[in-house]
Amino acid sequence: MPVGTVLVTGGTGYIGSFTTLALLDAGYDVVIVDSLYNSSKVALDRIELLAGRRPDFYQIDITDEKALDEVFAKHPSIDSVIHFAALKAVGESSVIPLEYYRVNVGGSIALLQSMSRNNVTNIVFSSSATVYGDATRFPNMIPIPEHCPIGPTNTYGRTKSMIEDVISDYINAQRNNLEKEGKPFQQWNGALLRYFNPCGAHPSGIMGEDPQGVPFNLLPLLGQVATGQREKLLVYGEDYPSRDGTAIRDYIHVVDLARGHLVALNYLRANQPGVKAWNLGSGRGSTVFEIVKAFSAVVGRDLKYEVVARRAGDVLDLTANPTLANTELNWKTELTMEKACEDLWRWVSNNPQGYRQEPPAELLAAVKKA
Amino acid sequence: MPVGTVLVTGGTGYIGSFTTLALLDAGYDVVIVDSLYNSSKVALDRIELLAGRRPDFYQIDITDEKALDEVFAKHPSIDSVIHFAALKAVGESSVIPLEYYRVNVGGSIALLQSMSRNNVTNIVFSSSATVYGDATRFPNMIPIPEHCPIGPTNTYGRTKSMIEDVISDYINAQRNNLEKEGKPFQQWNGALLRYFNPCGAHPSGIMGEDPQGVPFNLLPLLGQVATGQREKLLVYGEDYPSRDGTAIRDYIHVVDLARGHLVALNYLRANQPGVKAWNLGSGRGSTVFEIVKAFSAVVGRDLKYEVVARRAGDVLDLTANPTLANTELNWKTELTMEKACEDLWRWVSNNPQGYRQEPPAELLAAVKKA
Repeated sequence: MPVGTVLVTGGTGYIGSFTTLALLDAGYDVVIVDSLYNSSKVALDRIELLAGRRPDFYQIDITDEKALDEVFAKHPSIDSVIHFAALKAVGESSVIPLEYYRVNVGGSIALLQSMSRNNVTNIVFSSSATVYGDATRFPNMIPIPEHCPIGPTNTYGRTKSMIEDVISDYINAQRNNLEKEGKPFQQWNGALLRYFNPCGAHPSGIMGEDPQGVPFNLLPLLGQVATGQREKLLVYGEDYPSRDGTAIRDYIHVVDLARGHLVALNYLRANQPGVKAWNLGSGRGSTVFEIVKAFSAVVGRDLKYEVVARRAGDVLDLTANPTLANTELNWKTELTMEKACEDLWRWVSNNPQGYRQEPPAELLAAVKKA
Repeated sequence: MPVGTVLVTGGTGYIGSFTTLALLDAGYDVVIVDSLYNSSKVALDRIELLAGRRPDFYQIDITDEKALDEVFAKHPSIDSVIHFAALKAVGESSVIPLEYYRVNVGGSIALLQSMSRNNVTNIVFSSSATVYGDATRFPNMIPIPEHCPIGPTNTYGRTKSMIEDVISDYINAQRNNLEKEGKPFQQWNGALLRYFNPCGAHPSGIMGEDPQGVPFNLLPLLGQVATGQREKLLVYGEDYPSRDGTAIRDYIHVVDLARGHLVALNYLRANQPGVKAWNLGSGRGSTVFEIVKAFSAVVGRDLKYEVVARRAGDVLDLTANPTLANTELNWKTELTMEKACEDLWRWVSNNPQGYRQEPPAELLAAVKKA
C-alpha cells in the first residue's frame, strides 16, 4: 500500500523531478502533469532508474482545467498536490508579463478550481524567496524570517506572491465555510515553501537541471563556463556592501530542497495546520565570488569571469532564517554549498547536453547496480 | 465624427452606466460588454433616453477572450478600454475567493491579452480605495495619498491590487519592449482609478444603482430602510476613535466619479503618461451617523438603525487625498454628499424595484422634454 498519491505539477522540471524522486523513495505514488514547455520526458527515465518505479505522466498545460479534471478522475486516490508548474525566468517576466500572469496565476487558479471540484484538499506550493524583494530595506530582517513584509521587485516574484494570496484565501475560505456548516474542515491545508537559491544535482551524476535555453542562475552558468559552452561568467556588480562587493545568496542543494517538500507534505497531512509559509534555506549566505571560488576548486582550475554593472531588481542579500522549518518541520539542510558544487560538476561534465544526450554508460551501470 | 470609440466592460453596472453616459455626452462612441450577471439591460434604455444615443451592447463574460476578440474585430475604431467588469461584494469575496480571483484577475488578464492582439493601447481601470487597507497603521497617511503603501485587508481588495500590478507590468513592458526596438511606445497608457465610496444617482431620478441581491453599501441599505423594504440599518461599531464613534468614509457622487473616468481617459490620450494611479474622492470624510442624519433629513424622518459589533476587515478611516487628481487631471468633486443623498432618494423613492419597474411617467416625460 502506498503512503498516498500525490499529483506533482511541473514534475519533470528541475525541482519537480527531485521531489518526485523523494516522494517515490518515501513510498508515495506520484502522478505528474507537465507541459514539457521547459523540461524533458527523459527526466522520467532517470527517476525510474533511481527510484525503481515510474511515476504516471500526462502532458498537460496547467491552465487546462478540463484536462486536470480528467487526471483527478482517473486517479481518485490523489489527496494532495505539489504545485511547481510555472514560468520561472525573472528577466523574461518583465518582457512578457501577461504570459507570466496567465500561466502562473491563471494556472494556479485553474488548478485550485479543479482540486476543489475533485475534493483534493492539500497543496504544497513552490513559492520563492523573491517574494521578499529587498529585505535590507527593513532593520533586522537579514537573515530573512517568514514575517518579513512581502514586496517582490519583479513580475516573476509578483506572480509567486499573488499565488500565495490566492491559496491562502482559498484554504481559509474552505475551512471557514465548512466550519460554519458544522462540517470537518481541518483537512484543507496549504504549505507555501519559499525557497532560496536551489542548486546542485543528483550525486549519481544522471539527474540535474536541464535549462532549455540560456540558463539564468549563477551555478548553471558557471557550469557552462567549466564545460567550455560559455566563454565567461558575467558578475553583476562588485560594489554591493558585502564582504567582497558581490551579492549574497543562500544556496540550497536540490536534494535537501526536495526533502523539504516531502516533510512539508507529511506535516500538512499529520498536523492539519491550515495554510502556512516556510522558508527553505540553509541560513548560510555566500557571495558570488565565494561560489566562483568553490566551483573552481571542484573543477580544478580558475573559471573566467567579468564584472559588469548591477542588474535592475537585484538585491544585496537573500539569506534565509530557516528556524521555522528547522523547528516545525524538523527539516534542515544537510548538504553544503560545496557538495552542491561537486554534484553539479559531476552532472554537467558528464551531461554537457543535459537530457539530450545519454550519460556515460558507467554512470548508468553504477545506478543500476546500486 | 466621434471623439473616439471606447469599449466599456461592465458598462450596464452602476458606475459603468454613468461613465457610458458621460462618454456619450462628451462625443465618444461607446461599445459595452457586460455579462448582466449583476446588472440590467434596462440601463441601456435609460442611457439612450438621457444621451439621445444608444451604446452598442454585447452580452459577454469578461473571461471569454474569443468573444472579446470578436468585439474588437467588429469595432476596429476602439482605441481605449474602460474596465469595470468584476465581482464586487467584499463579504462574498471571502466566501468564494477563487471565483473572485478567476473573474476579476483572470478576466483582466484575458482582456489585456485581447487588447494586445487587437492593438488597443489605453486602459482606464476601475480600482478601489480598498487597495490601501488600513492607512491608519501608518503615520500621516490620512487623508490617503496615492503613495500610501498598498495592503488590502480582504479578497476583493486583493483582486483590485493584483490587477493594478498586472496592468502596470503590462503597460511598462509594452513601452520598454517597443522603446528597445526603436518603435513608438508612448501610446501605451493605463490609469488606475482608486475610488472611495461611490453613491447617489442621476438627478433625473431614472438612473441609479440597482443591486441584484442584498445591497452591501451604506446608502443603498439606508434607501431600503426609507422605502420600507428593510426594517433597519445595521451600524457596524460605534467604538471607533472618530468624532462620533462610527467609521469614516469619503462619499463621492457617481456623476462626479463618471466624469473622473472621462477626464482620466482624455488625459491618457493627450499626455501619454504611461501607467499611473489617481485617487478619486472628495477629500471630505463623513461618519456613518452623519450619513444617516443627512439622508434622514432628505427623506424627512428619522430612519431606524441598530448598532452592532464591528465587522472584520473594516477600517476606521478611508478618506482620500485627491490633490493629484485635482492638479494633474484638473478634476475635483462638484457635488456634495448631501446632493448625493437627495439624488439617491429621488431614485429609490421613484424606483423601489430598481430597473425591474418603470419609473413614474412624469419623470420619463421630463427627461424626454429636456
